[in-house]
Amino acid sequence: LRAGDIAARFPTVGLDARAEDAARLLAGQHLPGVIVVDEDGAPRTVLAGTDVLRWAVPAWCEDDPPLARVIDEDAADLLLSQLAGRTVRDCLPGHRRELPTVEPDATALEVAALMLRADSPLVAVVDGDGRACGVVTLDALLHRVLAS
Amino acid sequence: LRAGDIAARFPTVGLDARAEDAARLLAGQHLPGVIVVDEDGAPRTVLAGTDVLRWAVPAWCEDDPPLARVIDEDAADLLLSQLAGRTVRDCLPGHRRELPTVEPDATALEVAALMLRADSPLVAVVDGDGRACGVVTLDALLHRVLAS
Repeated sequence: LRAGDIAARFPTVGLDARAEDAARLLAGQHLPGVIVVDEDGAPRTVLAGTDVLRWAVPAWCEDDPPLARVIDEDAADLLLSQLAGRTVRDCLPGHRRELPTVEPDATALEVAALMLRADSPLVAVVDGDGRACGVVTLDALLHRVLAS
Repeated sequence: LRAGDIAARFPTVGLDARAEDAARLLAGQHLPGVIVVDEDGAPRTVLAGTDVLRWAVPAWCEDDPPLARVIDEDAADLLLSQLAGRTVRDCLPGHRRELPTVEPDATALEVAALMLRADSPLVAVVDGDGRACGVVTLDALLHRVLAS
């Protein structure tokens, strides 16, 4: 069982993509995050859903979540208005989140070890030129390993 | 849009459940983790996939992932043999991972604020007796909010 057998296609974004577009990619994708690629298509880091929320949720709401209950405003409008004008680069945390990469012939055990070392539920699969060509998620890895 | 409208059913485990069973629950579920409940069904924390890997992946493999490439052993057998005899309690990290809870009538904005405060992509929905009755994931929240 090799990384290339388990890898799924996944959405990527560039550093200068709009934060709003990244939020839409994360929505309903069942992924822990979106892979951020550089201008050559090489994976750089992961934009997590919580990174987007950090900008999308107004500060007054984070400070006092129950207050959000009484706000008579459309949640989508409010969240998207906070993201307006921001890029993926703006949303990334100061400390770069490690994204391990493997080539398609890496074994399932090697992928598991890399997830553990990086404390990352995502490993990017790269082709011979270093471009992102898929992702192995922890749940897909367990699924394939335990079903085999 | 309320937490109860977005919540999905989800697998839970008790503290004394077998680690192997928790790994099977995580496999292919597209969830960031499994909710761990106490004997009354109240959510206590989250068992993440990486918590399970920490025990399932042999130390020699974590220390030198490329070495895993040359091992001529079935990955499932190896990982499951490492989990044998361990419980969910054994796999939980020393520092308890925060799992926010809300009642079903919490608003989407309130749920988003709680995810952000706890840095958690999961919020457990509890009924009036404090028992876990569903989960809101960050991707489901974004999906429902942005589609509304």
